[in-house]
Amino acid sequence: MNKRLTFHLIGNVLRLSGALMLLPLIVSLIYGGSDALAILEAMAITVAAGSALAFIRPRRETLRAREGFAVVAFSWLLVSFFGGLPFYFSGYIPSLVDCFFETVSGFTTTGATIIRNVELLPRGLLFWRSFTHWAGGMGVLVLSLALIPKMGARSIHLMRAESPGPSTDKLVPRVANNAKILYAIYGGLSVVMVIALLLCGLDLYDALVHMFGAAGTGGFGTYANSIAHFDSAAVDVVTGIFMALFGVNFSLYYYVLKGNWKAALGNSEMRLYWAILLISSVLIAINIMPMAARGFYSMADGVKPGGNFFTALRYSFFQVSSVMTTTGYATADFNLWPQFSRVLLVVIMFIGASAGSTGGGIKVIRVQLLMKSMIRDIRRTVHPKSVNTIKLDGHTVSESILSGVQGFFFAYMFVLLASVIVVSRDGFSFETNFTAVVATLSNIGPGLGMVGPTGNFAAFSDVSKLVLSLCMLIGRLEVFPILMLFAPSAWRQ
Amino acid sequence: MNKRLTFHLIGNVLRLSGALMLLPLIVSLIYGGSDALAILEAMAITVAAGSALAFIRPRRETLRAREGFAVVAFSWLLVSFFGGLPFYFSGYIPSLVDCFFETVSGFTTTGATIIRNVELLPRGLLFWRSFTHWAGGMGVLVLSLALIPKMGARSIHLMRAESPGPSTDKLVPRVANNAKILYAIYGGLSVVMVIALLLCGLDLYDALVHMFGAAGTGGFGTYANSIAHFDSAAVDVVTGIFMALFGVNFSLYYYVLKGNWKAALGNSEMRLYWAILLISSVLIAINIMPMAARGFYSMADGVKPGGNFFTALRYSFFQVSSVMTTTGYATADFNLWPQFSRVLLVVIMFIGASAGSTGGGIKVIRVQLLMKSMIRDIRRTVHPKSVNTIKLDGHTVSESILSGVQGFFFAYMFVLLASVIVVSRDGFSFETNFTAVVATLSNIGPGLGMVGPTGNFAAFSDVSKLVLSLCMLIGRLEVFPILMLFAPSAWRQ
Repeated sequence: MNKRLTFHLIGNVLRLSGALMLLPLIVSLIYGGSDALAILEAMAITVAAGSALAFIRPRRETLRAREGFAVVAFSWLLVSFFGGLPFYFSGYIPSLVDCFFETVSGFTTTGATIIRNVELLPRGLLFWRSFTHWAGGMGVLVLSLALIPKMGARSIHLMRAESPGPSTDKLVPRVANNAKILYAIYGGLSVVMVIALLLCGLDLYDALVHMFGAAGTGGFGTYANSIAHFDSAAVDVVTGIFMALFGVNFSLYYYVLKGNWKAALGNSEMRLYWAILLISSVLIAINIMPMAARGFYSMADGVKPGGNFFTALRYSFFQVSSVMTTTGYATADFNLWPQFSRVLLVVIMFIGASAGSTGGGIKVIRVQLLMKSMIRDIRRTVHPKSVNTIKLDGHTVSESILSGVQGFFFAYMFVLLASVIVVSRDGFSFETNFTAVVATLSNIGPGLGMVGPTGNFAAFSDVSKLVLSLCMLIGRLEVFPILMLFAPSAWRQ
Repeated sequence: MNKRLTFHLIGNVLRLSGALMLLPLIVSLIYGGSDALAILEAMAITVAAGSALAFIRPRRETLRAREGFAVVAFSWLLVSFFGGLPFYFSGYIPSLVDCFFETVSGFTTTGATIIRNVELLPRGLLFWRSFTHWAGGMGVLVLSLALIPKMGARSIHLMRAESPGPSTDKLVPRVANNAKILYAIYGGLSVVMVIALLLCGLDLYDALVHMFGAAGTGGFGTYANSIAHFDSAAVDVVTGIFMALFGVNFSLYYYVLKGNWKAALGNSEMRLYWAILLISSVLIAINIMPMAARGFYSMADGVKPGGNFFTALRYSFFQVSSVMTTTGYATADFNLWPQFSRVLLVVIMFIGASAGSTGGGIKVIRVQLLMKSMIRDIRRTVHPKSVNTIKLDGHTVSESILSGVQGFFFAYMFVLLASVIVVSRDGFSFETNFTAVVATLSNIGPGLGMVGPTGNFAAFSDVSKLVLSLCMLIGRLEVFPILMLFAPSAWRQ
């Protein structure tokens, strides 16, 4: 391992993430500045630590896969640790483990929280908390790639380690340009969403903060009742649709901008994504209709006037979109919904969003390939001698990609079960343990039971919080970059 | 599909399974015969239906894979349906769906029950119920192969479809001889276990019936408190050890008999199997020690004199052995154990027993290959250009076997999640739904919550019972033979 280069690059990332704290600092000063000093201290320490690491000059410039993955893994760990310092210095989150958990949850766009009452926090801290979602969404590192073009060809290893999905589409030859295109789309969609939320009547602060949570598919809000706080059909619909849009592969937006509608609309992952999203919404709407008719559907103020199918659909679409894109916003306490809806939401948690989006989970394209592979296995049972290749969007999928996807699936389930065992030591219910791990590993946020949309992760032990933090990182970085850190061969010279 | 040959073979199997009802009939007559007429009626109908089907003479003798799988799948379905008739005619189980569920559970060696109080049933029916475990353990079909040698070379397709594990060891060239060797080992171990149980003080009936449940790794007992009824350390230890022995690949016993100790003791699946079994037993013993110290460990009569680590180990070893071999006997209500123990048992439910044993689950050898494959993927992350083959017991494992195992794993999880969705419609807890499906898919029997060791499956709807029955068959026949039935191409001429 080229340790000097690794340290140097990590230092750059850390310095950048310290610089980003300037934004919450400004917000804090606008709103009275009670948390300004805490943010400033954290910022100074982060920039100093980053500069110290960046000061280590590499002797060789060779960046191999292992350095790429190590930079990514350690950058996320360190950025999350230092990013949690504003909460620590302000005294609002007195435990360092909790600060780390909350910030990992932010940067990995999970949205799981240990804060019992979020409305007590000052606006600067809440802004930073939500902003980590937006920064984490497309990857702190891809951001730095776009800003530090001198890294050139080496950086493909970094991008591969951080991009969701089984393969990295190269839209244009240079990695840095790729990142810039994706960021332009991300920024553009973000601006449109802020405008839409402003039109719904939100103030600029709320619009920005809730855009951060949706764009990064994170889910941190600033109100105890999440999106239900606004109690507005317009906000529900706008947020629901934008969450769904941020769960689509961003390359497709590039194709649309280039006028290549055929490539965009014909994409089979995108079609399956919408199909699952809409069919599940309708199924859940039918399932929760009796609740809606009794007027018991919203988190906002409990019982409301009785609704019909469309009331139910408003809440089910929002929730399915929120869970499938792994955002985690809520307009209803789905923990109280019938078992069928709850279990369907858990299964959607596994599937997750599209590859190349800001969302997490196993990803629709992997589920698609796994299903196609299963159908091929069934066909082979009937016709043992038949030779079938698997095609996706007209292209043959190589056996090595298929085996990679199958390996990913097992690794994902292995991490899931191993983590559930550790977390179960705290003694909470099976439902809480299982969905807490799924919700962190798939970067969603809320699960069922104690970690449902009105609950939080505060009651877990420190060991469980660290394991769940690791799950968030493993999920966000697609398993292997983190598991690699446990392999002895990665550390040999 | 060669339908005439398929019908003919299914008819033979059905006729044989009808003939097997002679045993419970004799037992019934010995013990007063209150259920003799019901058994006789069921036997007559089964033999008649089997003979009618066997009467269809095939025009061609070609048995391809698809016919092999179809024979296996439909034989299991029909044998389970007709095998449930004694319960139906006797009036003890008034619903045909329940009769089917109970008998599928028997033949697939699952042990999940819909009977609320098993002690009410007469001895003939209880004997038949347990005997289905013993018959199903090594496969009704392999049994008929051993008895009907004329099928010769064609029968390898049948054996493959029914044998657990990713590959079928051929000990000797002829399939019928293979089956005979395996049955001789099965029968020999069974006889030894009956003698051991007689020495523990059980009467012949109890010894036979509980041997059936252990040898088939089924788990049906004749007492409401399962093995805890005997409240005997000797019975616990004997049953615990024999369950574990029936979860080992039977081929290894053949090697031992041949004097090839090296092949038997060096087998890596066998070593991992015992390692998981013993380490889990110790971990759970430590976890339940406080309960044992308080004297609250046995299902037999609630609170008992306080125990120590070895008391805890007695109960934990029995339970781990029971769950890992997918038997499902209980000496303690593990549903009341701490979360860590409960979750560890659920994870062991997934792993299951060894390939080539009578146990179910994913099987240790598959978990082994999946783990090796994951480690290889991690290594590839570090060294992208490295070429590694995976070895097991000194032999290179082909990529097609690996991909088959990975495909099996996804199909298993797919069936699991899809079934949990359907079962959740009944509205029971997440824990109940999830473990009910795992416990049937892995052919264990009891799960957690409502379906825990003191509970049963009676409260599920008919739809759920049928889905869970399908899960038992899918698990027992290792997924693809049943999924194949849903493939249109299997049905084309």
